Amino acid sequence: MDTLTVELGTRSYPILIGAGLLGRPEVFRQHLPARDVAVVSNTTVAPLYLPSLRESLDARRIVEVILPDGEAHKTLANTARVLDVLVANRFGRDCAIVALGGGVVGDLAGFAAACYQRGVAFVQVPTTLLAQVDSAVGGKTGVNHPGGKNLIGAFHRPLLVVSDTRTLATLPARELRAGLAEVIKYGLMCDAALFAWLEEHLDQLLAGDAAALAHVIRRSCEIKAAVVGRDEREQGERALLNLGHTFGHAIESATSYKEWLHGEAVGAGLIMAAAMSQECALLSSADSARVRRLLERAGLPTRIANVTPDAARDHMALDKKVRGGQLRLVLLRRIGEAFVSTDYPQGALQRVLAAHFG
Amino acid sequence: MDTLTVELGTRSYPILIGAGLLGRPEVFRQHLPARDVAVVSNTTVAPLYLPSLRESLDARRIVEVILPDGEAHKTLANTARVLDVLVANRFGRDCAIVALGGGVVGDLAGFAAACYQRGVAFVQVPTTLLAQVDSAVGGKTGVNHPGGKNLIGAFHRPLLVVSDTRTLATLPARELRAGLAEVIKYGLMCDAALFAWLEEHLDQLLAGDAAALAHVIRRSCEIKAAVVGRDEREQGERALLNLGHTFGHAIESATSYKEWLHGEAVGAGLIMAAAMSQECALLSSADSARVRRLLERAGLPTRIANVTPDAARDHMALDKKVRGGQLRLVLLRRIGEAFVSTDYPQGALQRVLAAHFG
Repeated sequence: MDTLTVELGTRSYPILIGAGLLGRPEVFRQHLPARDVAVVSNTTVAPLYLPSLRESLDARRIVEVILPDGEAHKTLANTARVLDVLVANRFGRDCAIVALGGGVVGDLAGFAAACYQRGVAFVQVPTTLLAQVDSAVGGKTGVNHPGGKNLIGAFHRPLLVVSDTRTLATLPARELRAGLAEVIKYGLMCDAALFAWLEEHLDQLLAGDAAALAHVIRRSCEIKAAVVGRDEREQGERALLNLGHTFGHAIESATSYKEWLHGEAVGAGLIMAAAMSQECALLSSADSARVRRLLERAGLPTRIANVTPDAARDHMALDKKVRGGQLRLVLLRRIGEAFVSTDYPQGALQRVLAAHFG
Repeated sequence: MDTLTVELGTRSYPILIGAGLLGRPEVFRQHLPARDVAVVSNTTVAPLYLPSLRESLDARRIVEVILPDGEAHKTLANTARVLDVLVANRFGRDCAIVALGGGVVGDLAGFAAACYQRGVAFVQVPTTLLAQVDSAVGGKTGVNHPGGKNLIGAFHRPLLVVSDTRTLATLPARELRAGLAEVIKYGLMCDAALFAWLEEHLDQLLAGDAAALAHVIRRSCEIKAAVVGRDEREQGERALLNLGHTFGHAIESATSYKEWLHGEAVGAGLIMAAAMSQECALLSSADSARVRRLLERAGLPTRIANVTPDAARDHMALDKKVRGGQLRLVLLRRIGEAFVSTDYPQGALQRVLAAHFG
């Protein structure tokens, strides 16, 4: 078992990574002693892993909230459903909420934990690659609004993140590829060696090789934990983690969260961020091509049909990085170095949108 | 103008108290420069004070969200309504939400500000005595659940609290009395001299005497700001501010937030807290009688018809101070000294409930 720590002073928390952690009661016992626990999961994951998790939880009472699967269900209405269950079972402020699933379950359950009685304990048990490398770490919680991705939410730190890498064995190939998009993001953002390693080992990852997956999960969590430890509330550096996400969120909200997986949208967004960086004469055409090639090899979609450039632009205007009406973009100086830019030609953005949307 | 400060390090904020502050642009300009502002108010207060507030705001854009008046409307559904307006107007993370009204408006608007884009700026402009002495200060935000008072919420500090005491001139007598219940609470909790002052000057307060009201607003804010500065997240001392509230919240939720004003319920709760303290041989019968007499003189209701003791008990079980199934009560050692107790005879609680409910 690997243990990493998100360093946040007295409120630091551990990320445990390993095969079979779900079946080890000692992993949970220390952090969840004899509490009332609500496990939030979805209809796909619950049948696979909830029985094993229940066995490992040393809880006074366990109630379950099983949501439908998919980004379209990450809503305020489903958050209210979780809150209703907590109230109906008369859970106190000393209860805990455990999220068992991917990013949708983790974000929504974390937001419910942030709001219930102004904040209760929260544990992330991510079961997708995307959640294990990204969304379960860092304390961002929230739900979507029809007008924009993650527009309603809170910062709420977990007590603990338990990533059982064995759960990836049942992960559909499409979900695995979506998770790889976030791993590629870390390489592009700040780790050229990781990017080169991914170019080298992509086939092993796509084949589900456990050692290769464990390597990228650990490295991704190291990067994210370090960034979050320095800038939890996204006053600066943390915004770099949104590389590809401004484009990606526009894809997701323009398609009503129904067609694209989050990681797929981020993958297409990374290609656009690279193209935009090339348009701005920052990134070489060779490096821009490397980005596109790796994402294509990962089997990720690269073109967005059924969304016009204007619609994309419209959805980007509600991005959380807008300040004073000005959209800030995360761009690349080179592979391994991202930065936040407000100083880009609008024409370049128009060309990139026109080349990828519609 | 009086200025107090809630001392929270780099995130300290001022409370401004004075007559006519709503009409003074310089009060707002410093804290809200050229932002997009959403003013949340209700159908009673907006016609009286929103035009004047609009004049004083130096905002880029102002949108209004006018809610129905009353505790029954402090819901997650109305929070969603505020969020919908923010999204529809494409407000960015650099927007601000201004609450103009009493505790319902302030609590709900503050919760919307806490959740929108994971937290935007928030300004409290309280227009009731209760909000000026209590709910607008301290950063607790939230809404009610049918199962319990304030069960859904967040801690979210305002940038600024502006208490224009002139707004009390239009406050209905019933609302004024409800606000006095919270002032009496501060005296009981930690300031015997304030309690004695209230016994002396109650008639002036009830007559709306501006100097007397300004005195109690200032003293109440001093007490609350000091407690919140020491214990913002209610790890300890802040729980004392809930004196009377465990009983009061049960009254409110058992009557579906439709019959009692919050301050009225707190007033009846204070009488029960005193009676309970007397039952536990902590408070003298003479002091318990002083408590009851002052609240009766303030014109506050003291008996709860239509709620059985069992129903009250049931609603108290969902209080946010329950830990491990044990209800903690704030009791009185004497007038001016409250403490949190878990060590009280259940029979005493039963007797107090039976004497006041049903």
